Amino acid sequence: MKLSQVFWQTIKEDPSDAEISSHKLLIRAGLISKSAAGIYNYLPFATKVIRKIEGIIREELENIQSQEIVMSVMTPGDLWKETGRWDKMTGEMLKVQDKSGRDLCFSPTNEEAVVDIFRKFVTSYKALPVSLFQINTKFRDEIRPRFGLMRGREFSMKDAYSFHANMQCLDETYLKFYQAYSNIFQRMGLEFIIVEADGGAIAGGDKKTHEFQVLAKTGEDRVVLSREAGYAANIEKATTERAKLNFAPVSDLKSVATPNKKTIEEVCTFLNIPQYQSIKCLVYTAIYGLKEANYLIMLLGDDELNELKLKNLLNADHIRPATSDVLHKFGLVAGFIGPISELGTTRVLVDQAISIDNSFIVGANKADEHLSGFCVKRDLKKYETVDLRLSKKDDVVKGTKAKVEIVGGIEVGHIFQLGDNYTKSMKATVLDQNGKAQFPLMGCYGIGVTRTMQAAIEQNHDEFGIKWPMAIAPFHVHLVEIGKSEEFKVQANKIYSELKSHGIEVLFDDRNQGPGFKLKDAELLGLPIIVTLGERDMQATGEVDLKIRKTMQSQKIKLNDLLPRIKQIMSEQLK
Amino acid sequence: MKLSQVFWQTIKEDPSDAEISSHKLLIRAGLISKSAAGIYNYLPFATKVIRKIEGIIREELENIQSQEIVMSVMTPGDLWKETGRWDKMTGEMLKVQDKSGRDLCFSPTNEEAVVDIFRKFVTSYKALPVSLFQINTKFRDEIRPRFGLMRGREFSMKDAYSFHANMQCLDETYLKFYQAYSNIFQRMGLEFIIVEADGGAIAGGDKKTHEFQVLAKTGEDRVVLSREAGYAANIEKATTERAKLNFAPVSDLKSVATPNKKTIEEVCTFLNIPQYQSIKCLVYTAIYGLKEANYLIMLLGDDELNELKLKNLLNADHIRPATSDVLHKFGLVAGFIGPISELGTTRVLVDQAISIDNSFIVGANKADEHLSGFCVKRDLKKYETVDLRLSKKDDVVKGTKAKVEIVGGIEVGHIFQLGDNYTKSMKATVLDQNGKAQFPLMGCYGIGVTRTMQAAIEQNHDEFGIKWPMAIAPFHVHLVEIGKSEEFKVQANKIYSELKSHGIEVLFDDRNQGPGFKLKDAELLGLPIIVTLGERDMQATGEVDLKIRKTMQSQKIKLNDLLPRIKQIMSEQLK
Repeated sequence: MKLSQVFWQTIKEDPSDAEISSHKLLIRAGLISKSAAGIYNYLPFATKVIRKIEGIIREELENIQSQEIVMSVMTPGDLWKETGRWDKMTGEMLKVQDKSGRDLCFSPTNEEAVVDIFRKFVTSYKALPVSLFQINTKFRDEIRPRFGLMRGREFSMKDAYSFHANMQCLDETYLKFYQAYSNIFQRMGLEFIIVEADGGAIAGGDKKTHEFQVLAKTGEDRVVLSREAGYAANIEKATTERAKLNFAPVSDLKSVATPNKKTIEEVCTFLNIPQYQSIKCLVYTAIYGLKEANYLIMLLGDDELNELKLKNLLNADHIRPATSDVLHKFGLVAGFIGPISELGTTRVLVDQAISIDNSFIVGANKADEHLSGFCVKRDLKKYETVDLRLSKKDDVVKGTKAKVEIVGGIEVGHIFQLGDNYTKSMKATVLDQNGKAQFPLMGCYGIGVTRTMQAAIEQNHDEFGIKWPMAIAPFHVHLVEIGKSEEFKVQANKIYSELKSHGIEVLFDDRNQGPGFKLKDAELLGLPIIVTLGERDMQATGEVDLKIRKTMQSQKIKLNDLLPRIKQIMSEQLK
Repeated sequence: MKLSQVFWQTIKEDPSDAEISSHKLLIRAGLISKSAAGIYNYLPFATKVIRKIEGIIREELENIQSQEIVMSVMTPGDLWKETGRWDKMTGEMLKVQDKSGRDLCFSPTNEEAVVDIFRKFVTSYKALPVSLFQINTKFRDEIRPRFGLMRGREFSMKDAYSFHANMQCLDETYLKFYQAYSNIFQRMGLEFIIVEADGGAIAGGDKKTHEFQVLAKTGEDRVVLSREAGYAANIEKATTERAKLNFAPVSDLKSVATPNKKTIEEVCTFLNIPQYQSIKCLVYTAIYGLKEANYLIMLLGDDELNELKLKNLLNADHIRPATSDVLHKFGLVAGFIGPISELGTTRVLVDQAISIDNSFIVGANKADEHLSGFCVKRDLKKYETVDLRLSKKDDVVKGTKAKVEIVGGIEVGHIFQLGDNYTKSMKATVLDQNGKAQFPLMGCYGIGVTRTMQAAIEQNHDEFGIKWPMAIAPFHVHLVEIGKSEEFKVQANKIYSELKSHGIEVLFDDRNQGPGFKLKDAELLGLPIIVTLGERDMQATGEVDLKIRKTMQSQKIKLNDLLPRIKQIMSEQLK
């Protein structure tokens, strides 16, 4: 494609609302243009990237016998009411009434719609398994859209759904998607990890679910990773352990004055002990419909609570830190909360990192006072030992000495086992081998198409611009002509045509602009190979300049070597 | 693809809400499934058809240097307010306020959005022409959606837009799209005609615009067609003439009693003259903002008014037949309206089919009375001769003797010259060669993707089902195995694999069903070639049955001849 004839322009200034590099680069490299908050138009080169991503996804899913469909973007409210999500998903659903007064919403996801299709056609176990996918536009009405396409409102997503007669069949298909997703992100040339994830509202805590995370420092997700132990988990789900700690031996329980020392850090510095020799006490309220219950949580002084673990453990609708009214009711003093209290005799959850046989500093439920020598086993009548802490750097993978690090990740794919939640609430049954109605089990599998494009940039860029992976780059080669004579231009055109005729996708910068301008544009757009045809060099030595964008390494090569060298780099980068 | 493993099922009963064959067949052949009124899900085989249609469109538009983009489905209300369409297009726009209270609409079309993109990037005439297209979901909130995908609410459309520095450049690009559209529908294997169309609200009456109509008896559009003269026009725009008529010679004006004869037909039968020897007088009110004006319209007795011609001629906002109050005011009597009246001395429009030198029967503005011998030239003081009649069968193409017929058409494509309407109202300027700001001229070009799929079925079906054109069929070959032995099944599978390995798209019916069931399904789905492998025949004679779906012609052929025969049919049908 000749740049003199295409609709493309780079932008010098960073957009004012962009916080992360990939968002800035999407705008500056002329890939997207903002339509409204969190809503974008995809310009020609971004559209090429999207088509390539779609192509890879389509191939890999067809390989595992998933069939492509296109579900309507607007789904009728009635379907969402069957599962109760019409009221539950208010946060992200863009709801509208049509001219006839019927409820519709711009689909944020399509479980209800696909179950509705399924139940209209499938009546027997013999037709199972069924595996369907679509690539379509979704809308989630975030109040504060951020990070460009990462947390935009309108986005393109591949969503797939499968139906099964039994758990074994669901497990098999789940594994196929797991493998297909691995292939997809590998083919795209992205560095990613697969992490255990928490199913959240969609799957429920006890079903299998994995996230595919593209690694990037600025990624919104925190992933707990040990390459040594082959361990990766979303921090919300991670079950790592503290490396070995030297706890204090048992001693008598006694008061310690801690004037004005409220935080663990202040108290432990004041007493000159490591923070893990103290216990942090938190009070949380769990909400079950209209009922509430309060819990005392005990963690090592330098650990943090994983709220999701607590919520799942209590099987609560919501949880929240107790209000000052609640603390007051139980006679607890903020900053000095401790286990020796009314609440401490009823519902106490002790994190398993705490050694119940050793002594710790704890709050005394009095201002400016703590207790030393507190021992769980000895001093508490009733308690439960559970896993409630948030994983952190330098933890070890359970049962090993392998230390973990916390890395940034961008969730680009997510696979879930849904069980029969949806088929049950929508009364989608099939007859089993005995002619009895059963609810099929479901899996669902998502890839954020436009988000993956941005994740690729977030992972692959430098101070000059984007470094596209070969497989999803808008073009393979950026060919820059620098020279003025008609004769040279004819030759440059010939080289362009020659490369194209070998199936190489070439963007040819034939614009009337200076070399600096053109090369800056090329580095910003970031096609994998930048070839500069300089008129003087070509006349003097017959050489052209070939730069690999990823490494920024340049070399002069003979014109005759250009095609084979490009082919070589392509095959290296595409494997 | 093996039918035993895919999500597909035909339906026996016609859907209750389907009026035309293509709608019934889309449902019965398991291609689409209704989501809500006028909103459909595309099942796997329809998705294949859509992808093929998209592929052909994409190729042909890239050939004319149009670049693909993806504009947001939701567009901000602010853009529509700039052109005033936020209030004008209320009928079809699905409007919604987002969580932050901002107006959005589900795009019914994208002129505003594309001009917004254009003005953010293009500042100089040097960057022109610009040609962009997208294939995306649109929504038009029809109150009474009908005919399946034909007049559905949610649909897929290819919309393209071009920007130009001058009329010559717009004309050139317009011609390129004209040619590309011809290629597209030709490659799809559809019988279509290109008709002059009325631009309606989008383009305005004086700009170039053509419709691409797929011919089908039940098509909603009426097209005036003479293959002999190479003439085709939308009936609203057609300017054909009456074939030569024998008008009555001039005679004196005198009263004729016509008791209870109100219609032209009644009067002419009563007087025993052909209807074209009478004149039909109509009174219309033209509305201009808050002002109104009334007109007397004169047409040959057996002609009908083309309201669009009248509206364009008067350059009115709206027109409507005059109310009885207006008739009363001018002393006109419904059923006996004539030119000799107060209105007849002010604003009279005489259709040019009327010979102003001959005599006609006209109403006398009195009950039960007409006038004979009325001659326009002699009896009217002031009048205008204009083209106002609706074309009809047996008219002739202007200046020829070629008669026209009226055929049904389904509008699948439409190209418009928009002029500078949108760039002006959205203040999108570029600097011209002299550094002066100018408003670029625009063209816009649409193809209904999902509508084209249905039009293909409406044009190509019979009592057994669909007859897919080869280029857009979900698969090329429907391979049906009829037999039970393991040995035979292994052989059938081998034939399936063999055909696939030659790039032929094969749907393999390996289901455990009877021959009748399978063959009915095959005819209903309508893949171009149906090959039946009968175990007995194959054992006895080594022959298989090959049926061309379009003609329903069957032939027995040797297994060895199967592949070359399929290839031959494919190349015949794809040219």
